[in-house]
Amino acid sequence: MIKLKEIPTKAPKGLEKEDIKRKTDRMARRIGHLQHIMYAEKKHNFLVVFQGMDASGKDGATRKVFAYCNPTGIKAFPFRKPTEEEFAHDFLWRINKQVPAKGMIQVFIRSHYEDVLIQRVHKWIDEETVNDRITAINEWEKHLERDNDTTILKFYMHISPERQKEKLQERIDDPGKQWKHNDADWKEADLWKEYMSAYEDAINRSDVPWIVTPVDQRWYRDYFIAEQVLKEMEALQMKLPTFATLKPKD
Amino acid sequence: MIKLKEIPTKAPKGLEKEDIKRKTDRMARRIGHLQHIMYAEKKHNFLVVFQGMDASGKDGATRKVFAYCNPTGIKAFPFRKPTEEEFAHDFLWRINKQVPAKGMIQVFIRSHYEDVLIQRVHKWIDEETVNDRITAINEWEKHLERDNDTTILKFYMHISPERQKEKLQERIDDPGKQWKHNDADWKEADLWKEYMSAYEDAINRSDVPWIVTPVDQRWYRDYFIAEQVLKEMEALQMKLPTFATLKPKD
Repeated sequence: MIKLKEIPTKAPKGLEKEDIKRKTDRMARRIGHLQHIMYAEKKHNFLVVFQGMDASGKDGATRKVFAYCNPTGIKAFPFRKPTEEEFAHDFLWRINKQVPAKGMIQVFIRSHYEDVLIQRVHKWIDEETVNDRITAINEWEKHLERDNDTTILKFYMHISPERQKEKLQERIDDPGKQWKHNDADWKEADLWKEYMSAYEDAINRSDVPWIVTPVDQRWYRDYFIAEQVLKEMEALQMKLPTFATLKPKD
Repeated sequence: MIKLKEIPTKAPKGLEKEDIKRKTDRMARRIGHLQHIMYAEKKHNFLVVFQGMDASGKDGATRKVFAYCNPTGIKAFPFRKPTEEEFAHDFLWRINKQVPAKGMIQVFIRSHYEDVLIQRVHKWIDEETVNDRITAINEWEKHLERDNDTTILKFYMHISPERQKEKLQERIDDPGKQWKHNDADWKEADLWKEYMSAYEDAINRSDVPWIVTPVDQRWYRDYFIAEQVLKEMEALQMKLPTFATLKPKD
């Protein structure tokens, strides 16, 4: 059982920022290289979930960690408020359309977890539905891993409420960031305690482990995520297919 | 009226490769920067078509020119042989699903033009159907430009038959490229003359002008394409929206 309050949102002491940034860039290059092999092999695939409060750096992490990937082999999908058609289906219907094909990296910016977070916090659904959905998510993720060879990496973007306020304020003060500003984000931030408790519960009841990621500093966030992604990619021991290993084409 | 035979497939004399590569990288960075603004503005969008014979560098160009774009704002879609469901619809049905949303860059690797190229060369369709399709394409592209604010950039990847043979042979000789090898590519290459005549006709009858791109050398190909893409992006004079220009959010 994890308790979010006990997990730091900041980088450990003693790290040298410029050194870490260099290492991140090196890892990102390696991720780009392995993505090429993944695409060629068409065997494995990656589902990378970035889930967290507003301004927790989901977009920024996507850009940095996957900077050297070929657009042909990676898709990033930002989930927003469901459409009327999507609401008319079960909550996994629209998610399922976005799962990675073999050989691909798929990034979820927000995800199916919204359906047990924002909806729970606002009490748009009852607790029985929350339980059903958590069961459904666990089964669905298992299905992807087992039947689609998917590696699922779920990053909870762990930001402190103070740092979030700073970043939301930047979206007002900095004209270059004003396009990101949304009044609604401040209202959601007022429900911090309720969100933390919903996140904590979702994390603790998930079969696929969440990676709680300290995101208060961008440079450490990118380093931390790149390291996890790279570790999982290396573990697959992927190889460029050759005539000796290729299946015949049609 | 263009005649492909009269257009070079190679870089002009006197260019210095390393210098050109540096310039390409600088342009690619600027493209990444403008893509960020396009995404923020959600007004314009780009449809970039890479169409050409096998091994003409469609994938490579995608990777180089859009190297600094955020995966959230760019999608690359490689069109392959249509599925049974797709064949059961008109030829633009599957294409239409992949058009860029406002704020996005969409790359087509192969495109709707396959339907007046491979299908025409193999005589799977009659000449009347070819004419109908060319009319349909012109109307459909105009519709995108007019009703979706789309900038359409169509690159014909102009490769010499000798260079193509070399690159197809590399896919046999180099184990790192064997995964790209496909016997069928050699058979299509035997129809070179028929393909060139179909390409030439498609290019000459297109309302949206094609950009005939010399691709025999990768470094010049990427430079040439980046320059065109950047020119069109700059022309839009995009600006990050600020509170003064933003529409209210819902």
